[in-house]
Amino acid sequence: MDPLDAAMKMCGADAFVHYAAGDDADMRYLTRFVMHDSFVFFKRYRQPGTIIVPQMEAERASRESIAGVMTRTQAGLPEITKKEKNPWEAAAQMIAGQAGKIMLVSPALPAALLRALEEHGRVFVDTGTIAQVRAKKSPEEIRLMLTVQKKTERAMALGISLIRHATVKRDILFHDGAPLTSELVRVAIHKQLMDDGCRAVETIISCGEDTAFPHIIGSGPLRPGAPIVIDMFPRDEATGYYADMTRTVSKGKPDGQVIDMYEAVKEAQQIGISHIKTGVTGAEAHNAVVDYFKSRGYESDTRGFIHNLGHGVGLQVHELPTVGPAGTALEKGFVVTVEPGLYYPGIGGVRLEDIGVVRTQKFADFTKFEETLIV
Amino acid sequence: MDPLDAAMKMCGADAFVHYAAGDDADMRYLTRFVMHDSFVFFKRYRQPGTIIVPQMEAERASRESIAGVMTRTQAGLPEITKKEKNPWEAAAQMIAGQAGKIMLVSPALPAALLRALEEHGRVFVDTGTIAQVRAKKSPEEIRLMLTVQKKTERAMALGISLIRHATVKRDILFHDGAPLTSELVRVAIHKQLMDDGCRAVETIISCGEDTAFPHIIGSGPLRPGAPIVIDMFPRDEATGYYADMTRTVSKGKPDGQVIDMYEAVKEAQQIGISHIKTGVTGAEAHNAVVDYFKSRGYESDTRGFIHNLGHGVGLQVHELPTVGPAGTALEKGFVVTVEPGLYYPGIGGVRLEDIGVVRTQKFADFTKFEETLIV
Repeated sequence: MDPLDAAMKMCGADAFVHYAAGDDADMRYLTRFVMHDSFVFFKRYRQPGTIIVPQMEAERASRESIAGVMTRTQAGLPEITKKEKNPWEAAAQMIAGQAGKIMLVSPALPAALLRALEEHGRVFVDTGTIAQVRAKKSPEEIRLMLTVQKKTERAMALGISLIRHATVKRDILFHDGAPLTSELVRVAIHKQLMDDGCRAVETIISCGEDTAFPHIIGSGPLRPGAPIVIDMFPRDEATGYYADMTRTVSKGKPDGQVIDMYEAVKEAQQIGISHIKTGVTGAEAHNAVVDYFKSRGYESDTRGFIHNLGHGVGLQVHELPTVGPAGTALEKGFVVTVEPGLYYPGIGGVRLEDIGVVRTQKFADFTKFEETLIV
Repeated sequence: MDPLDAAMKMCGADAFVHYAAGDDADMRYLTRFVMHDSFVFFKRYRQPGTIIVPQMEAERASRESIAGVMTRTQAGLPEITKKEKNPWEAAAQMIAGQAGKIMLVSPALPAALLRALEEHGRVFVDTGTIAQVRAKKSPEEIRLMLTVQKKTERAMALGISLIRHATVKRDILFHDGAPLTSELVRVAIHKQLMDDGCRAVETIISCGEDTAFPHIIGSGPLRPGAPIVIDMFPRDEATGYYADMTRTVSKGKPDGQVIDMYEAVKEAQQIGISHIKTGVTGAEAHNAVVDYFKSRGYESDTRGFIHNLGHGVGLQVHELPTVGPAGTALEKGFVVTVEPGLYYPGIGGVRLEDIGVVRTQKFADFTKFEETLIV
């Protein structure tokens, strides 16, 4: 049974309703249609899904969406708005006219629309059926994600090559006579990804003490003998699927503490990977890494290993499953990252991140890129 | 009085609560902090706002956010999750602990969180206070948006230059010996915008019959003697503000019907612009254009002028105010587009879009770029 039908059956709903823009991952999964402004998706019990779009999007929606297409006019909105000026109330009337008296709505449905729909019938809030379904990738989705990962590795190679071939003057990296900055490496990576049909934003190119803060994206000249964290999560424009990968490099030999951290993180990643297979929980994989770090004298608190071992990736860069203390059993077809890191303010940070798919007996790593600290 | 405080006072709320990622425009406006995963913003009555973020984001949030910063640990989440496994319930407990018994929440708050919060007190759903506030731009915001518009015009110049300097062979445009495609022009534009610190997505470079559908982004070789619509809405990465502009060009002379449409649209834009000033409604400006098109024999229905005359722009590419049939009085400081268009399947489409700010007595156009059909 279709998972949405099963969820509807549980609460006796006539229809499932979602309202979001096409960059909402659930909406993209349900419709494969991208639109800037929010629109309605509804699916009556055991029927195919339908989207309700403005007239001007109808032709494109018919070409691109896997859901059926209805215009707002066909759904009666012009008549409704003659009497109802509040846009949420008007939308609710329009939706209730299509969906029936008992509705199951997406957990992300806007609060204002939920309240308006409650005037038209009984509304149950779904617990995340589509997010659960999305965690398990089909062979086709895995193929699409492998493609994005390959493009990501080409971009990583370009970024590291810029660092490797830089010259060092006055404790700064130079490229073509100008300082090699985070911004320059980021733009070079983004442009190559663009040529490959991918969009990357906020790629992390952090250096030195900034690397101790995992989400500082980095700015200014890169320096030799210091960790440089490159973390990118490009999205394929055509399909919407993400990849996610991180490498840490140093132009020339860094501080011994950084070298020790790098070796520990690299080993920790292999330990994490070795635990991942169908039936093992995300918590077990995470805790194995925590234990290993502890054995090497690294804490997992406000310093040291301060984030989850990994996360699901798909139409969102962070999605189910959880690969951390709250993680439940992993299933075949889940695509997850394995990204241990160590972070010490005043010293720096190291992170290594691979992406791959959970198989019955192993983690099938999509990432083929080498792990070498000193370049 | 602070508009959020005023909204809280109206319903006697102890605090306002929002929950979204930092690419949500309201969240960015309230915090100026960008984070991929959703986080909590709360503001107690007459107090400054505070965000609740994971430990790993705390340092960066302290540097970057204009709101106060609290970690999830400081907000008690680890203790709560020991007993409460449902993440929405746990978040609601954490939020209620900070926000009090009577809450005013964002209209975009996820339905699942609204339902969970209702277990902890009385919850009012705001009607869109922040979206209203965002419509009116400060002098600083106008300065930021003018900057994005200038970069956008440089990118438009590049795109049109590629078309102007193309050669024509076998009814196709060529550039450097290869067909000049929508994709090639789009990537060239996006790369230049990237160098200017802007991110553009889904820039429309549509040609010929595709131009009759305003949101088809276009693909494949461009052709001479046919309308080419270039519509771009880049966002400045650092500030989050958008620009929005459209030009229609033709390499060589197009069909006479297209020339007539172009002249009508160009004149319609001036008519729209001439109506815009403080106190005039978006509906009045829109209807003036509808009337003008009617006088030239063009309908405003399922063909002809099929969309609103314009829309607000800011931290979203489409935001308040409405400049269309439902548009209310325009106010000083609103930044809006004026973008009449005509669309006839089988013939093609023409759209011209400027952006500017509503002043007391006029529309101050940010857009300086020429309007010339034949290039």
